[in-house]
This record gives sequence, structure tokens and C-alpha cells, in this order.
Amino acid sequence: MKATAPGAVRGLALRARAAAPAVAAASTGAKDAALLASADQLLRDAAEIMAANQVDVDRARTVGTPEQMVDRLLLDNDRLVAMADGLRQVADLPDPVGTVTAEWSRPNGLMMRKVRVPLGVVAIIYENRPNVTSDAFGLCLKSGNVAFLRGSSGGLSSNLAITRSIRRALFENGLPEDAVVLVDDVSREAAVDFMRQRGLVDCLIPRGGPALISSILENATVPYVIDGDGNCHVYVDAAADLEMAADIIVNAKMQRPSVCNAAESLVVHQAVAGDFLPLAASVLTGVELVGDERARQVLPYIAAATDEDWSTEYLDLKLSIRVVNDLDEAIAHINGTGSGHSEAIVTEDALAADRFTNEVDAAAVLVNVSTRFVDGDEFGFGAEIGISTQKLHARGPMGLEQLTTEKYVIHGTGQVRA
Amino acid sequence: MKATAPGAVRGLALRARAAAPAVAAASTGAKDAALLASADQLLRDAAEIMAANQVDVDRARTVGTPEQMVDRLLLDNDRLVAMADGLRQVADLPDPVGTVTAEWSRPNGLMMRKVRVPLGVVAIIYENRPNVTSDAFGLCLKSGNVAFLRGSSGGLSSNLAITRSIRRALFENGLPEDAVVLVDDVSREAAVDFMRQRGLVDCLIPRGGPALISSILENATVPYVIDGDGNCHVYVDAAADLEMAADIIVNAKMQRPSVCNAAESLVVHQAVAGDFLPLAASVLTGVELVGDERARQVLPYIAAATDEDWSTEYLDLKLSIRVVNDLDEAIAHINGTGSGHSEAIVTEDALAADRFTNEVDAAAVLVNVSTRFVDGDEFGFGAEIGISTQKLHARGPMGLEQLTTEKYVIHGTGQVRA
Repeated sequence: MKATAPGAVRGLALRARAAAPAVAAASTGAKDAALLASADQLLRDAAEIMAANQVDVDRARTVGTPEQMVDRLLLDNDRLVAMADGLRQVADLPDPVGTVTAEWSRPNGLMMRKVRVPLGVVAIIYENRPNVTSDAFGLCLKSGNVAFLRGSSGGLSSNLAITRSIRRALFENGLPEDAVVLVDDVSREAAVDFMRQRGLVDCLIPRGGPALISSILENATVPYVIDGDGNCHVYVDAAADLEMAADIIVNAKMQRPSVCNAAESLVVHQAVAGDFLPLAASVLTGVELVGDERARQVLPYIAAATDEDWSTEYLDLKLSIRVVNDLDEAIAHINGTGSGHSEAIVTEDALAADRFTNEVDAAAVLVNVSTRFVDGDEFGFGAEIGISTQKLHARGPMGLEQLTTEKYVIHGTGQVRA
Repeated sequence: MKATAPGAVRGLALRARAAAPAVAAASTGAKDAALLASADQLLRDAAEIMAANQVDVDRARTVGTPEQMVDRLLLDNDRLVAMADGLRQVADLPDPVGTVTAEWSRPNGLMMRKVRVPLGVVAIIYENRPNVTSDAFGLCLKSGNVAFLRGSSGGLSSNLAITRSIRRALFENGLPEDAVVLVDDVSREAAVDFMRQRGLVDCLIPRGGPALISSILENATVPYVIDGDGNCHVYVDAAADLEMAADIIVNAKMQRPSVCNAAESLVVHQAVAGDFLPLAASVLTGVELVGDERARQVLPYIAAATDEDWSTEYLDLKLSIRVVNDLDEAIAHINGTGSGHSEAIVTEDALAADRFTNEVDAAAVLVNVSTRFVDGDEFGFGAEIGISTQKLHARGPMGLEQLTTEKYVIHGTGQVRA
């Protein structure tokens, strides 16, 4: 595994681009067969992949990486089986390519169609978690795209072994091996190069923390979709069913605190704060609570929330609590501090629910349901490549459809414009 | 009209952002009334607008601006009436906001809806042509967005007068004046600031040349949609109706050479080059032709095309001609040199047409019709803000729908995730 030469990213991007027409033209059957074969090959190559992963894990431990991070990197048999299952599930999903999304004719006789087509080359830059390598490949292939991947330095051995295995399956199934291209130069310079392959890369999707996102904003020249933070709120309205609200905040905060659709903040109408906060505190077992002055009047033992708390995605068993005068203040607070991911209201008042869903500016707005449902699988999209908090192209869970674009196909009989 | 202070762009962006909720919530009736009132007000303020425009025109002539450029800047009564009519036409278009684009339920009882909503603040940076000021405002308002505008220094007086007039109409119709905010600092620094208002601007649309586009790629931190070049081809297949092909290339090249959907290159199958090229040359009156070796065997008097010609958008009465062996070579040439805008085939062979429309990678692919039809009006979308050659969010003509995003609205009855 030698380091690639300067300019190597460009060369790899050219290979990805060159493979794109054949991948875009591949039939659903051919793509599904390659996905199933890739799943089998990953399991067949388990020993080789585990050995490669051990190299990454050993290196991480040697440099003193915290065990929590090492765990994200680690592959075991269950995780490899899950990766293979993920590819099989994608094979089962409907192929978005070729769908006619609109069809009309014009008075001059032109027949117009809008057809769903692959993006071409989808670049994904990600941190650790070797399963992203096969997950991203699967979604890209099914949607007719080449997966151009750049994982972290810490996962390089694992990612090389996984792509080697997938490329073998692609080759044996008559698809271009370059349907997946992994950048093996894990330097910072290569990461910047990776973001600047304009004309070769059709869409860049970063999966990582704030440092990666700001590097994208500063350096990228290719189009990108950002899978952003989730500073999600649950608002308990004056007209809430308080038992339901307690169930929802417990689920939204505690069921899996480390994910982007977990709640980070509880907003409570003043009319119910006195009743609801003690109830909530009694069931949010083990959750560190911080609150504003009025929340602390009800729960005097909790710490004061700082300004920073309102905009922090804890991703942990911590929750900020704010008491508001009314729905207006709740909406203003959520729009002012949220990240536009998933925002929930608990209320029996249909008018309040309507105002909340209309006025809160987020990818998903929810009434009487946990924010944890905002995910591709729960929406029925199947696997997802991320959850977009931007408004262009894709907003919310990004499944196969969000990995495509559309093309106008126009048939005439010799029309010219007057 | 004093220069704005440093940081002024941020202040203006904050004003635009603050106006966004009220503009997004405005009813169709309120928006249409304000559009019609703005049209009336522009005509009522004609003298003031013309006087301001005269300042710009005089300044341009003083610094020796070519008359062709001065003409782009010039407003006369007809052009002002056209601007007002443009606003009235937008009032007549259907409002895209609030449309439910998908609706389904999940086995756990969640009711899912996907609803079209405004982007919020749409920033537009453009060169000369004061009509863009009112056109952009009209499309933004109808789609529920604030128009945050930055025109060229050359058009500042005109743009200020136009926005003053529109803001008066907005105020008198109960909508926020800041539904249109014009940046009056026309320095380069302000242009860069304008591209970096992340968190305040939801979408940036540049309308200008390559220098502006590369500044966006290097500097922008806000999401953007690029209205790119059109290096459009007409391919005359072996099975073409040659009379039809001649009509189409004449229309595509000559009907309005300065626009992005005009053809810049003619690609001809070798089997018909001998018959077609003399016919084409005889009707392309006044068009400068350059060709490859095989084209020049048929038309020995034309100049040789250089490599640069194949990728040049002339926007003028000039056309490059290439003879290809077959459809494969035509597709490869077009994908290799085109800008992904509009690409046409002329053929009676349905199989060739299918291959061309499937394999050519462009916003619009056309069979037996002039490329000149690729425009929002001709598609039936009404007015357009530009034609996107990128694949994310919007591809092809961008009308009102492309100025919106979608939001998931989810109703439950207390569901929590297991």
C-alpha cells in the first residue's frame, strides 16, 4: 500500500469519470447482481478484511486513540455481515433510474419528458467507520453512479480491503471495477484535491464533523450536499398530552443519544412547565439537565444553561430546557438556534400544530412523534447516505432518489423557434 | 447614494433574513397584489427611473464603454413596460408554495407529507441589465422568497431607482419592504461578502460570465446554483431528414446567436456529410464556419477549427463543424466538449434517437427540434431566473418551482422509536 503520487487524485477522478457512462447505462438486473455478488465476496474475503482492519485498529491504539473511537473503526463478524446485508437490502430497493417524473406536450407539438438519471460520479469523504465504504458504494451503484471515495487515514487498510473485494465482484459481474474508486492518499492535500475535481465529480457528500464541513465550504469547487448537524428540539405546548410528551422526550433524547435526529433541547410552554418538568425530570434517568431561569424555578437542582447550550448538539445524555411564554417564542427560539434538521411539537391543539409545522424552518417538522423517526429507513426510503440540512437538491434523508438528477427529453418533428 | 460602510453587506443580509418569515407566509393573493402594484409603480416612477438610468448610461459612455454594452444597460419606455409586464405575467403564474408533492403513511401510523416551501432568502448577483432587478424580485416574491440583490456598479443608479419603486409598492400592499434588498456597495470586497452570508442566504444564483463563476467557486460559502454556459451541438445523423436538419441548424445558430441555447457546433455523420454540408453552408448566410479536416474536404473554403473551437461558446454568428464516423463518436464528442446545456439530434432512426437521448449527458436532449426551445417560457414554466447546467437541485430552465425547497411534515399519535 504505497502512497500515491502528487496529482494522483486527479488520475483517480479521471478513472471514476471514465467508468460513469457504463455504470449509468447498467440495467437494474446487472446492478442488483453485482450488489449481491459484492455482499457474498465481502463475506468470502472476511479473513483478509479482518486482518486489514486489525492493522488499522492496532495503529489507532498505538497512537493512543480513545477506545470509543477505536470501536467506531473496529470490524467484527457481525459488522461485516451487517455490511453484506446492507448491500442485499439496496439490491431489493426499486431502481430510481429511468423513472419519468413528468410528461407533457406543448401547443407547438413538442413532446416533453423529464426523466430521472444518475448524477454520474458521486464523491464521498468520510471519517472512520469502514462500513461507509460498502454502504456508499451500494447506494451509488444502485442509483447508477460511480462511488469516488476518500475515507480517513485511520481506516485506510480496512477501506482498501473492502474496495478490493467489491471491485473483484464488479469485475466478475461484467461491470467496471472503477464503479468504486478509493483514494489511497490520505494526506490533507489530497483531501483538498478531492474537493476540487470540478468537471469530473458531479456531487460531493461529506460525512464528518465541523472541521470537514468548513474545509468543504472554503475549498470545494464541485457541487456538494451537506449532511449537517442536528440540534433538534421537542416543544411541549400548553395543549400537550403530558404523558405523551414525556414518552416522546425520553425517546428523542435517550433511545440513541449519539445520532443527529436525537433531541438536544426541550422547550416547554409556561402554562405546563410546573406540571411537566418534574414529570420529565423523573423519567429522563441519567440525563444531565441544564435550564433557563424559569426551568430552574421548577427544577432548582439543575445547572443554568449558557448561551452556548442553546446551539449545542450534545450527542450525549445531556439536555437543555427552556420555558417560553407562548408558541411564538417557541418558534422564534427554534428557528434561531436550531440547525434545520428535525423539530417536534407535542400538542392536542390542531391550530398550534399547523402554525408550528408551517413556521418552523427545518427539513422535518413533527407533531406528536419522536424526532428519532427522521431517517431514511423509517420514512420507507430504505438505506440513506445521510440527512441533509441544506435546502438545495436534497433536504432530509437522502436515499437513492437524492443520488439522481433529472434530464429533459424533448421530441419534435422539425420545429424551429419563430 | 452614499457608499455603504464595511460590514454593510452583513447588515443588509440580516434585514433580508428578518423579512423572510413574513414573505414566506404571505398568501398568493397578497403576493399577486404586490406584484401588480409593483408593475404599476414602476410605470408611475418612469421619469425617476429613466433619470437614474441616464446617470448610469452617461457614466458608462464617459469611461468609454462599448455601445453594445451601453445598450444592455439602457432603459427606454418599451423596456420599462416590458419589466412591468414581466411582473404581471409572474402574478398570473400558479403559486408553487404549499403544494403537497408526496403523501403516504407508514405501518406504525405516521402520516407523512412532503410540502413545497420557499427557500427563504435568494441572493442574486448579476451584471448590467437593470431588468434583472425587477425580474428577479418578481420570481422571488411569487415563490415566497426575499430577493437579496447585488447588481453591477455600472447599473447602480438604475437598480436603486427600480428597487425604491418596488419597495414603495410592497409597503403600500402590507408586505415587508425588505422583500427586496439591494446591496448598494458595488466594490469587489462587497461582492465576496455577498457570497459568504452563510446562515442568512439559502441560495445564491450568479448571472454573469466566467470571472463571476470562478469567484463563486473560490469564495462562496452559501449554497449556489450555477447558470452556466451553453456550448450546444446539433448532430445530423446518417438517417436525418436533411431539409429538416438544415432548418434546425439555421434556427439554432442564427435566430438569436447571443443566447445560451443557441447552437455553437454542428456534428455530421460521415455518410451524409457530402450531401448535407453544402446545403447547410448555403443557408447559414453570414455565419463564419470553421471545420475539421473532413468537413473541409467538403467545404474547402472554410478555415480549420482549432481544439479551442470545440469548447467555445461563440455567442455569435460563428459555427464549428465536425464530421464523425458514427453515433458513438458523436456522443463521445458532445459529452467531451459540451457544457451539459442542450444537445440535439436530427434523425428518423428511433434507435439512434434513443441512444442519443440516453447517453448524452445534458440538461436537455432534443430529437428533431431546435435547441432554441430550451427555455422556461417554451417549456410552459413561465418566466425563468436562468438555465442551470449543474445537476444538483435544478437542471435546465429554473422557474418558480426551482426557487422552492421541500419540507417533511409528519403527524403521529405519540409514536416513539423502538
